[in-house]
Amino acid sequence: MGSPGPDHEWERLRAVQRGERPVPPRVPAPLDWSAAGQERRLAFLRGRGVDVPHLAGRGGPVDAAAYRGNIEHFIGMAQVPVGLIGPLRINGMHVRDDVYVPLATSEGALVASYDRGARLLSRAGGVSCVMTDQQVQRAPAFAFATLAQAAGFAAWAAEQGDAFRAVAARGSRFARLTDMRAYVEANRVYLLLGFTTGDAAGQNMVTFAAAAICADILERTPVAPEYWFVESNLSGDKKATSAGFLRTRGRRVTAEALLPRALVMRGLRTTPERMCDCWRMGMIGGVQAGATGASSHVANALAALFLACGQDVACVGEASVGVLRMEVRDGGLYVALTLPNLIVGTVGGGTRLPTARECLSILDCVGEGRADRFAEICAAVALAGEISIVGALAAGEFAAAHLRLGRGR
Amino acid sequence: MGSPGPDHEWERLRAVQRGERPVPPRVPAPLDWSAAGQERRLAFLRGRGVDVPHLAGRGGPVDAAAYRGNIEHFIGMAQVPVGLIGPLRINGMHVRDDVYVPLATSEGALVASYDRGARLLSRAGGVSCVMTDQQVQRAPAFAFATLAQAAGFAAWAAEQGDAFRAVAARGSRFARLTDMRAYVEANRVYLLLGFTTGDAAGQNMVTFAAAAICADILERTPVAPEYWFVESNLSGDKKATSAGFLRTRGRRVTAEALLPRALVMRGLRTTPERMCDCWRMGMIGGVQAGATGASSHVANALAALFLACGQDVACVGEASVGVLRMEVRDGGLYVALTLPNLIVGTVGGGTRLPTARECLSILDCVGEGRADRFAEICAAVALAGEISIVGALAAGEFAAAHLRLGRGR
Amino acid sequence: MGSPGPDHEWERLRAVQRGERPVPPRVPAPLDWSAAGQERRLAFLRGRGVDVPHLAGRGGPVDAAAYRGNIEHFIGMAQVPVGLIGPLRINGMHVRDDVYVPLATSEGALVASYDRGARLLSRAGGVSCVMTDQQVQRAPAFAFATLAQAAGFAAWAAEQGDAFRAVAARGSRFARLTDMRAYVEANRVYLLLGFTTGDAAGQNMVTFAAAAICADILERTPVAPEYWFVESNLSGDKKATSAGFLRTRGRRVTAEALLPRALVMRGLRTTPERMCDCWRMGMIGGVQAGATGASSHVANALAALFLACGQDVACVGEASVGVLRMEVRDGGLYVALTLPNLIVGTVGGGTRLPTARECLSILDCVGEGRADRFAEICAAVALAGEISIVGALAAGEFAAAHLRLGRGR
Amino acid sequence: MGSPGPDHEWERLRAVQRGERPVPPRVPAPLDWSAAGQERRLAFLRGRGVDVPHLAGRGGPVDAAAYRGNIEHFIGMAQVPVGLIGPLRINGMHVRDDVYVPLATSEGALVASYDRGARLLSRAGGVSCVMTDQQVQRAPAFAFATLAQAAGFAAWAAEQGDAFRAVAARGSRFARLTDMRAYVEANRVYLLLGFTTGDAAGQNMVTFAAAAICADILERTPVAPEYWFVESNLSGDKKATSAGFLRTRGRRVTAEALLPRALVMRGLRTTPERMCDCWRMGMIGGVQAGATGASSHVANALAALFLACGQDVACVGEASVGVLRMEVRDGGLYVALTLPNLIVGTVGGGTRLPTARECLSILDCVGEGRADRFAEICAAVALAGEISIVGALAAGEFAAAHLRLGRGR
Repeated sequence: MGSPGPDHEWERLRAVQRGERPVPPRVPAPLDWSAAGQERRLAFLRGRGVDVPHLAGRGGPVDAAAYRGNIEHFIGMAQVPVGLIGPLRINGMHVRDDVYVPLATSEGALVASYDRGARLLSRAGGVSCVMTDQQVQRAPAFAFATLAQAAGFAAWAAEQGDAFRAVAARGSRFARLTDMRAYVEANRVYLLLGFTTGDAAGQNMVTFAAAAICADILERTPVAPEYWFVESNLSGDKKATSAGFLRTRGRRVTAEALLPRALVMRGLRTTPERMCDCWRMGMIGGVQAGATGASSHVANALAALFLACGQDVACVGEASVGVLRMEVRDGGLYVALTLPNLIVGTVGGGTRLPTARECLSILDCVGEGRADRFAEICAAVALAGEISIVGALAAGEFAAAHLRLGRGR
Repeated sequence: MGSPGPDHEWERLRAVQRGERPVPPRVPAPLDWSAAGQERRLAFLRGRGVDVPHLAGRGGPVDAAAYRGNIEHFIGMAQVPVGLIGPLRINGMHVRDDVYVPLATSEGALVASYDRGARLLSRAGGVSCVMTDQQVQRAPAFAFATLAQAAGFAAWAAEQGDAFRAVAARGSRFARLTDMRAYVEANRVYLLLGFTTGDAAGQNMVTFAAAAICADILERTPVAPEYWFVESNLSGDKKATSAGFLRTRGRRVTAEALLPRALVMRGLRTTPERMCDCWRMGMIGGVQAGATGASSHVANALAALFLACGQDVACVGEASVGVLRMEVRDGGLYVALTLPNLIVGTVGGGTRLPTARECLSILDCVGEGRADRFAEICAAVALAGEISIVGALAAGEFAAAHLRLGRGR
Repeated sequence: MGSPGPDHEWERLRAVQRGERPVPPRVPAPLDWSAAGQERRLAFLRGRGVDVPHLAGRGGPVDAAAYRGNIEHFIGMAQVPVGLIGPLRINGMHVRDDVYVPLATSEGALVASYDRGARLLSRAGGVSCVMTDQQVQRAPAFAFATLAQAAGFAAWAAEQGDAFRAVAARGSRFARLTDMRAYVEANRVYLLLGFTTGDAAGQNMVTFAAAAICADILERTPVAPEYWFVESNLSGDKKATSAGFLRTRGRRVTAEALLPRALVMRGLRTTPERMCDCWRMGMIGGVQAGATGASSHVANALAALFLACGQDVACVGEASVGVLRMEVRDGGLYVALTLPNLIVGTVGGGTRLPTARECLSILDCVGEGRADRFAEICAAVALAGEISIVGALAAGEFAAAHLRLGRGR
Repeated sequence: MGSPGPDHEWERLRAVQRGERPVPPRVPAPLDWSAAGQERRLAFLRGRGVDVPHLAGRGGPVDAAAYRGNIEHFIGMAQVPVGLIGPLRINGMHVRDDVYVPLATSEGALVASYDRGARLLSRAGGVSCVMTDQQVQRAPAFAFATLAQAAGFAAWAAEQGDAFRAVAARGSRFARLTDMRAYVEANRVYLLLGFTTGDAAGQNMVTFAAAAICADILERTPVAPEYWFVESNLSGDKKATSAGFLRTRGRRVTAEALLPRALVMRGLRTTPERMCDCWRMGMIGGVQAGATGASSHVANALAALFLACGQDVACVGEASVGVLRMEVRDGGLYVALTLPNLIVGTVGGGTRLPTARECLSILDCVGEGRADRFAEICAAVALAGEISIVGALAAGEFAAAHLRLGRGR
């Protein structure tokens, strides 16, 4: 934990630096809402080798049966508009590209704001991204008659690491038990099981693995529980918790950039100093509100990306917990966002659905071996949004931007 | 606050009780994934007077220009499958119906689980729902040179309620300033402005109103701030905070039901006692994880409803903070869910998008005068999910259900 | 709320500024642990008109009966050493003095560290202090059969403000009901009652007042609760909660200072910039730890002051929740600490005990009309400690200082 | 972790059960505040072999120099009355005794309330106590120019466990590095170092050990930090954090008891069911207040014990975070309290001060090898208080008890 990988990967870390090559063109016809505008953007994507017929409404009918495994009682497809932003230059461990990013949302001004942030970051040489940890938890819990029994069980369980690892590995090609702790709460024991789940977000995978471990426990435990449940809320599934900072849930990624002073002043019409003032004020505003983590509107980035790319949008609450930091550095703006709970995947779940697959293909994130890449993109996009909103607040343009592009009453 | 309305509405409260009429039929062909199955469900909806051509993929092309105000850089529509559950009987202040509910998700087993909970609740006489508060915040913040200046400003601002109310009312047909507090943090003042926003979720509306109030402040303040921002994170926008319990964000709704013992045992294959054990274990699991609020997987209900119905899915984190409670009562299971941050609307935002409007029409929640109804439905659906998941955990069927219906690896 | 008082008190706020008069001498013989050293310090106090025989062990025997009301099963007196720091110049709403402050602790280096901070602040012109709010809560809770009954009760209760105020006033010379909210949690209603309590910390006072209000409720309620309790943990009594930021518990006080650059460099051997770096790092460290509030070691100041001055040391957890902020301003260090939960008193509780009364007399805080003054002193002393510890951390002297003066192993 | 010790200690766990021997007499003359009453209690202690002359005010003068290492600028001793409660029967891993417990407080009714709880627990066969974990943290943090450097440093540091362990062991007879994690927050690395500290509370010990490790780091690191601090607030020192549940701070102890129904009804004048109702209401009250942990007034127990026994009362906030649980079991009341952050010691700090040493001697907790025992006593006493207060609330006697014994206004 805390390490960029099993073998230091110093070489790869050394590569995480400013990209000096020219920035490719921005998404064409950005504020052209006509069909022609849409077509120009689709042509732009095709020019980059990506075709998105389902997104464009030309995918033809899909057999309802195709949705088996994703939905029951199927009646049709909810449709949410997708906008394309970019380029966003990322200098990461797992992505070294200028990416164009599909965002699904119905909140006017949001896509334009992320686009602004993304292009600003690209002009600054891009976003550095590093993933430093990975883990998904399930937390079965066991009830005993007495504290003494519970403590005895916890002691026994603490020594079953090898056995549990074997059980987990037997049941899945991907789930690997990497961490285990037993917490005694009186006559209850909460078993926090941490797994890696390959390129899947993995909530189901860890459920099955945990169930298998529980079955093994029930067979071999020296002291029988009165009852037990395969999950106890300690895992943090579908909830914002502060626990994620200490143990990671999904992938832990930082995105970082250094914006030269001139770029901030020209691109955001404010100063690095004022942005830091705004960041600090928001930091303390969040503390006073009893917020978990400290950032601005990460949830917007993740909701739009998750929705476009077939991720579980119910995880937005937990995944958007993070820390944003801004500092003046060499007269410019140092800005970084750390997200310890990026629970995402490029296989399984909704990733195989037609438009999700197309959106993932825009990001070159389809299938196995791509989840790390996707996680770094998530963090970079979220950073773009943090810069843009703090810039708008600092420049006093936040309300005006929403008036111009939004339709909320 | 804390009241169901200015005039007690005892009459309406008295009406919040078990519905004794017969329960209408369930959604047809639930686990039939064929096109014929889908068609039967669509016909069922048509039989209830609701046509959903866009959902069904027969809506015809939509002019890209129609999305102006909801998206920029439009390239197409992300599509997420929608399942229909029900009936869900609700005995609320604002809804007294058996509703069928569209849920958009790609997580297998989720729709089936909510359907199970909804039908169980209906057989038990339905869900009682009461909305007890309503408010959306913006929190501009002002920086001064000194604490003394800040305290002086706060004192002045505290007396401007009438003036600010007038400013807010001038700028919007709907935004009404209903609450205001000034918090001095050293030489900063955080102004927490609470508004009602009619039937809109209202985040943009309160931004404009807050900006107008700030403009008024800058004109009239006895002490000029060094700088200020229209938002400071104190509002809790897009974040899970504990503050919502004390002040409401959006609408505060409780959904409540009493499940007879026999129904729990037959319908969930467990007992009220074991479900309470499971609830208690989850409650304490959440406390240990540093969770905000205490419930199970409310985020799943809200993400699926928000996505189907054109709500802002980025708000799922804040909206899913709540309190679930289970108790054994008269041998049966008393269960209730209180959600203080249901930030939803039936006008504005994404509600006008074709499939969103269709999903809202399934719920009879289109347009003005329907947000209270929609909020009560959200809470009732979330409660259905809490019952179903706790039931599955208590009966030891959680993993099996996901194996059968999900496709996660 | 948010105001420095009912009538703005602009005049008094204007007075909250740098004191330009000469700084009086420091406590004599600071690191002289001999009896002679102690005697010189006692003489110094006598020279300022304060005699502390009980502290000095010359108070003579106290009749055990004198402790009735403060203790049961009395066997003797626990003794904790007291050190004297100062001067600490405070330019407050309620104190405009150079104070010397007694701190009771057994942690070596703590008194010296606070003394360093206090004298530094004094040389900088002193600490500005403003109290901006005041309130102590009790939160009775009522259980009903159904949500509808609970909502009806809440609506009724919300209109009983005048009646409850009268009940509270009848029962106490000091308790005044100033705030009331009813929170519906399903079939429960939590009634949050906020009182001012004069110069008493007031926990018992608000218990009696709440009990009287509950009695009134039971007599007059239109719907009878199944059961009820006079407290429900919603008040935050004896617990660190984030709620205090939104509602105050005790007194809300900010202490603020501006340290010239030269003073930081000479007095703390570091720079304002490095101290801000350290503050920022601690801020984010706390966020990651799931801390409530964001400060450094306020608990040390309050524990030592509360213990010396007869306050309830069990309240240190709640009272030490606050926000510390550091910024570079005009090349110097702006530093401020806001404590929203300073639950203190100068009458009642332990304040009448012999050594407590002597310590309060050192601060000129004995008896009625002195609680505001005492609260401002608490915040100023806590600020002194924050500056000193962050300075020590920033200068890399933290461990060394403890090695020199502490004895911990 | 999660284990009662390196070798299961099943034998010792098996011994954690109801004590069947007769309960010894209660503290004599409990509500006699006369000097004669005090003398009877002192004689009772002497009869048990414990003499407490300093507590009783007959210890004679202490040389001021004796306080070197505990205080600076010494002017005298703050005195707080001490009451004696008991017997409290504890069936623990580290204590199997009927103990009498000194509590220092000035809050009337508190000692009587704890005495009531303690004797009730004894009549029920006593409190089971198990300590399941132990650790104290320091969290130095290091700032680098870039994220890549920080990630590289974290990877390097993660492999220095053996080296750091050796450094820590070299510098202290007691501090042992047992846990280490490196958290990358952008271009910062927070190093969370967990130590065991023998029988000392250990905050200073871990400071010195962390400083030594930092010195080692600076000598050998492959990438030099721009700056660093020996502590960053991530350790949770002097703060209530939710982190303690996941990692322990100090000692993690559960105290558990089963009160027969008759005992609850006779001793507390209420029922197990009503007490569970009250517990549940408080649990949810705390959740709504944004509390950390879920218990009632543990801070009172720990403040009174810490003050009597020379512990650091500034740690009451962090140490009182815990989980209380009540359930009806076999018609009686199952009750348990888990405290994961019991940061206490029996050597170092204030434990050598005359009255502290006497209070520790009453508990047979003086010196080396006694910290585990003391921690179990702390948890058991806190449990006694939780039972008594919940009982008083449930029986509707809370206000009356304070009226009778307290003096708060």
